[in-house]
Amino acid sequence: MNITNDDDGIRLALEWAAKGMFITTPNPRVGCVIVRAGEVIGAGATQPAGQAHAEVQALRDAAQRGNDVRGATAYVTLEPCSHHGRTPPCADALVAAGVARVVAAIGDPNPLVAGQGLAKLQAAGIAVACGVREDEAHEMNIGFFSRMQRGRPWVRMKAAASLDGKTALHNGQSQWITSEAARTDGHWWRARACAILTGSGTVNEDDPQLTVRGVDTPRQPRRIVVDSRLQISPDARVLAGGGTWIVAAQPNPEKEALLRERGAEIIMLPNAAGKVDLPALMQELGRRQINELHVEAGSRLNGALIAEGCVDELLLYLAPSLLGDAQGLFDLPALESLDGRRALSFHEVRQIGADLRILARFS
Amino acid sequence: MNITNDDDGIRLALEWAAKGMFITTPNPRVGCVIVRAGEVIGAGATQPAGQAHAEVQALRDAAQRGNDVRGATAYVTLEPCSHHGRTPPCADALVAAGVARVVAAIGDPNPLVAGQGLAKLQAAGIAVACGVREDEAHEMNIGFFSRMQRGRPWVRMKAAASLDGKTALHNGQSQWITSEAARTDGHWWRARACAILTGSGTVNEDDPQLTVRGVDTPRQPRRIVVDSRLQISPDARVLAGGGTWIVAAQPNPEKEALLRERGAEIIMLPNAAGKVDLPALMQELGRRQINELHVEAGSRLNGALIAEGCVDELLLYLAPSLLGDAQGLFDLPALESLDGRRALSFHEVRQIGADLRILARFS
Repeated sequence: MNITNDDDGIRLALEWAAKGMFITTPNPRVGCVIVRAGEVIGAGATQPAGQAHAEVQALRDAAQRGNDVRGATAYVTLEPCSHHGRTPPCADALVAAGVARVVAAIGDPNPLVAGQGLAKLQAAGIAVACGVREDEAHEMNIGFFSRMQRGRPWVRMKAAASLDGKTALHNGQSQWITSEAARTDGHWWRARACAILTGSGTVNEDDPQLTVRGVDTPRQPRRIVVDSRLQISPDARVLAGGGTWIVAAQPNPEKEALLRERGAEIIMLPNAAGKVDLPALMQELGRRQINELHVEAGSRLNGALIAEGCVDELLLYLAPSLLGDAQGLFDLPALESLDGRRALSFHEVRQIGADLRILARFS
Repeated sequence: MNITNDDDGIRLALEWAAKGMFITTPNPRVGCVIVRAGEVIGAGATQPAGQAHAEVQALRDAAQRGNDVRGATAYVTLEPCSHHGRTPPCADALVAAGVARVVAAIGDPNPLVAGQGLAKLQAAGIAVACGVREDEAHEMNIGFFSRMQRGRPWVRMKAAASLDGKTALHNGQSQWITSEAARTDGHWWRARACAILTGSGTVNEDDPQLTVRGVDTPRQPRRIVVDSRLQISPDARVLAGGGTWIVAAQPNPEKEALLRERGAEIIMLPNAAGKVDLPALMQELGRRQINELHVEAGSRLNGALIAEGCVDELLLYLAPSLLGDAQGLFDLPALESLDGRRALSFHEVRQIGADLRILARFS
């Protein structure tokens, strides 16, 4: 593949960034492509936290292939870091390697970087450019941007419904409203999330594992259960393997001990009404380095999260069927006026198998 | 524009057919393009009933432009008619004109034609071909095909809802859930329909005019109200100008007389339950030459039409908003099992303004 302009360079770097989709958390997914005289002489993607970032991977790749990167252009999907984190600054590595030019898709929102990566390169005499395919680069790390800029994760709520907006029959039957293709697609979105959140109602009714299945990933997302009164069973499958976070509002030392025995951590975050303070939970998850939070819950918790402004995006699978009188998507109170409706905008609509996948964002 | 193959010829003919979208009822929308040596020497579209069909229009166009059609190829979107209806057979006109070849997109489903048009041409020594862009040609006249093949109209049910499937608040407020662009688009679908059907509930609550507005059309569709017990007001706007069909199940000579005074016709079609026999109504509308029926009704009549298998297609506008606890789309009974769901398939999904337009067909 020949790279003759910055747009093509960043496009290829974005393809490399996507290779880190499931693994880089809590770091951003970054890709880097090194080009000299139109030829790609090195490429890499950010590895799991603590391991090499994309730039270092690309420089290593070039070296392994015996390519001299001096005078080359490096295309990166995010401004190279300038600070010492778990790894040394990528900006330093690019300077040391002698590249002549660095093109970044978008600036790093991390206050520890925020322009300093590019400034460091410039100070070393490297030509820099920033702002190529910025939207795509932002989408790639929408959760990382959210956490850096708002202190909380990007919250994506997944739901599946019939075309008349029903998620289950009154007798509880809901398996399956959507096709296998849509359900596998849903697991892809689970896999890219840092954590998956559900409520105690769903755990007690469906006993979900809340794991990624049918999608190849070396990492399982953190599982989180909102369980104000600590009502889930210690035998719940969501606790299997340990590491699950249980978010509660009412202490219950005995039950807490049982859950901790299963490897769970209890996070106590009550609001004045004795329920979990959902906005505070989002801030807490930001502190805990959750970039993308994937919500799969019942209509009650879904409604509460939406009503309290905690949701950024709906990932809605609509099946081509009608269920009639059945359970709805979100428990939200009746309105007196349409002015009170919750507004979104359609971000992407695509057919997945027989179903429709709608990404809609709250405005 | 140069036409060098049959596909391009039919594509252009389909563009001509679309010019008749609002006007040809009960005839099909047909386009005809006459090509000689790659050059379009005549083109036309079917005119309102009783006036010229597409083939004759195209031949006239060629003559007016001083073009000799002898030896040319005629592209038509539907097999030329072979019978004397309100106008003489188009097949005869093509033979008389001396064209060398006729390419039809699709055969005519009219039992009075059904292959005889092409046979007549062939018998006259004209080369014929049929089956180019057949699907598009079928879509163009989906109602005409339905009426010819099933004896009833193609029934398209239009509804507008929020993303959580709600059509109005409990207090009745519903203006407007969708954007102006979507509402104008809805009028385009009204304009192409032979008739628009609603129920007495909608007439009494909203007093709609049920006319096409904001779309340029010389023809207003027939208006039909399902009103089992003749409960609509003689002052209802749907009666303005006369010609409205009121479909009832329980005679009421006094009320019938009042409605007839307003120019309405009463069609009495009771079922055993004393309500309007909806499947029988569809057959009756087929007999009355309704090709495409556009339904805009409330959730009760919508539900009944769906439950009785009278609906072919949903034209659903989904707004990017959530209404919460509010009125749903279709009154359909609760199911015991998902096996009982009503299955559709997505035919087309498109964004119209801020909203989503979904065409889904019952399977």
